[in-house]
Amino acid sequence: MAVYTQLGAETLSALLAEFDVGALRSAKGIAEGVSNSNWLIETSGRNGSGARFILTMYEMRVAIEDLPFFLGLLDHLAARGCPVPRTIHDRKDRPFRKLGDKAVALIEFLPGVSVSAPTPGQARAVGGALAQVHLAGADFPHQRVNDFGHAHWRELADACGADALASIDPQLGALVARELALLAERWPADLPRSVIHADLFPDNVLMLGDTVSGLIDFYFACTDLTAYDVAVTHAAWCFDADGRRFDPALGATLLAGYEAVRPLSDRERAALPLLARGAALRFVLTRAYDWVNTPPGALVTRKDPLAFARRLEFYADPANARCFEP
Amino acid sequence: MAVYTQLGAETLSALLAEFDVGALRSAKGIAEGVSNSNWLIETSGRNGSGARFILTMYEMRVAIEDLPFFLGLLDHLAARGCPVPRTIHDRKDRPFRKLGDKAVALIEFLPGVSVSAPTPGQARAVGGALAQVHLAGADFPHQRVNDFGHAHWRELADACGADALASIDPQLGALVARELALLAERWPADLPRSVIHADLFPDNVLMLGDTVSGLIDFYFACTDLTAYDVAVTHAAWCFDADGRRFDPALGATLLAGYEAVRPLSDRERAALPLLARGAALRFVLTRAYDWVNTPPGALVTRKDPLAFARRLEFYADPANARCFEP
Repeated sequence: MAVYTQLGAETLSALLAEFDVGALRSAKGIAEGVSNSNWLIETSGRNGSGARFILTMYEMRVAIEDLPFFLGLLDHLAARGCPVPRTIHDRKDRPFRKLGDKAVALIEFLPGVSVSAPTPGQARAVGGALAQVHLAGADFPHQRVNDFGHAHWRELADACGADALASIDPQLGALVARELALLAERWPADLPRSVIHADLFPDNVLMLGDTVSGLIDFYFACTDLTAYDVAVTHAAWCFDADGRRFDPALGATLLAGYEAVRPLSDRERAALPLLARGAALRFVLTRAYDWVNTPPGALVTRKDPLAFARRLEFYADPANARCFEP
Repeated sequence: MAVYTQLGAETLSALLAEFDVGALRSAKGIAEGVSNSNWLIETSGRNGSGARFILTMYEMRVAIEDLPFFLGLLDHLAARGCPVPRTIHDRKDRPFRKLGDKAVALIEFLPGVSVSAPTPGQARAVGGALAQVHLAGADFPHQRVNDFGHAHWRELADACGADALASIDPQLGALVARELALLAERWPADLPRSVIHADLFPDNVLMLGDTVSGLIDFYFACTDLTAYDVAVTHAAWCFDADGRRFDPALGATLLAGYEAVRPLSDRERAALPLLARGAALRFVLTRAYDWVNTPPGALVTRKDPLAFARRLEFYADPANARCFEP
């Protein structure tokens, strides 16, 4: 969470002149996003009454070849009424530009704040917004592989290494091996697929009270099992931060909110416990990789892999399958 | 430049309820300030039409005992028409509150951007705004010692240590020793004193075109020689970043802009070359201290002490004294 690049007022003014958004009035580097630099920009607006935007500079991880997918998806979903920010195109209708050797995009600013301790009403709203994305994304014409999806978990575990997993917790290697084997055998291949957000943590949802005002940070969005996105969101919203306590009311309202917009098929619902194990494993693996590869004192705060190992154990317990029942 | 503390929406909403500013609508941690955490906050405003603020959490360096001085100064200057942000007092008229064990203040948001390459017109405006602060501060009733002022330079140099200075540059120790001796002997004691900003770099000035829309970050403000603040601002604005090139047009317009509001006395003007040596030495010393005491990869970007050693050599050359002549 940092601003990796300094942009002077002169550079920003020249950049904004390429868009029909008025003159620069304010620019604040914001501590948002893990691998991009972001600025909250205020301009005079087209009619002088002021307008705000997020300027994103893609620093790492996000491949420029993927930008048409990510930014096109925002426009596609926004046009269908989803609470996602539109991309502001430049005067030549390009959704992103280069600034020096880096790509930058100007994105609609949406109000709202990220909650730390969701209420059932908020979980219901998030479920509904996720379902809305899944329905609206049905006719999105582009595909993108899920780089952190089921097909990649073994290589992610190998990239961590057994020693590294053991250095985090003596039991972690065995847990990962057990789940990799089980998920390789049982992963459902024939459930409905669609564009998914794949990272819908509370950080990536802006809320005003119990209303979702914005879903943001679509830079893990991809094409994968639709119900897997429900499982990711369940794992992200329904536990306390360290994964020790599951909140049944949040789980129930999240699913009810989702199904009020897009009912799950019986096969999707039956697969949820397994999909949730996969979702928890995905975050165990990426967090473990970051844990062992992030130097102490680096700009990025490391997140505890064990918070998701605990969720994984929860989902692996057959007694907890009932949390996915209607 | 970082946000050191995470604040959830629930915590922020409860905090803002202590002020008469409406309901929280947005909060973005901003990468501004070296030792505080800052958020750009949007609320519904008193009348529902929206309002913006900077929320500052004092993390380090700033002593809570100094907050009445800093925040009172903002209110004093704003009330006299200076372009500085007002402090928003809480419902009990307190200029700051505690949040957990840290002090927080809600401060008016001002538009404007910091320039990287000032124009003469901008330097003129900054000179005028600085003079306005000096005049408006004349009846500010509180005093604060300049912890980084003339009386502290030798202890700052000692805190760096000769080895550390030599590790930055083999010549740096001799330069510092020469200037410490000379400034100890010649420093003027009887020039006019007032409240000064003491750190008016371009980063701390918000501009809209050639107009100063905000002077910010008063956390080095103190009571010291008024003309010393002119010298600090001269050193901060009139060179390229690495201190190799002085821009005479910026120097001339900065001083002309200042004198259009507050003419310098003959004795103040005559002292400027010496005061500027002191100003340059102050930043050599604090940057050198930070340079040798900041681990690589830390959250704070180290600034090059030699950029001010070069300014110091410039000011020490008698041929350059003419840059302070009318």
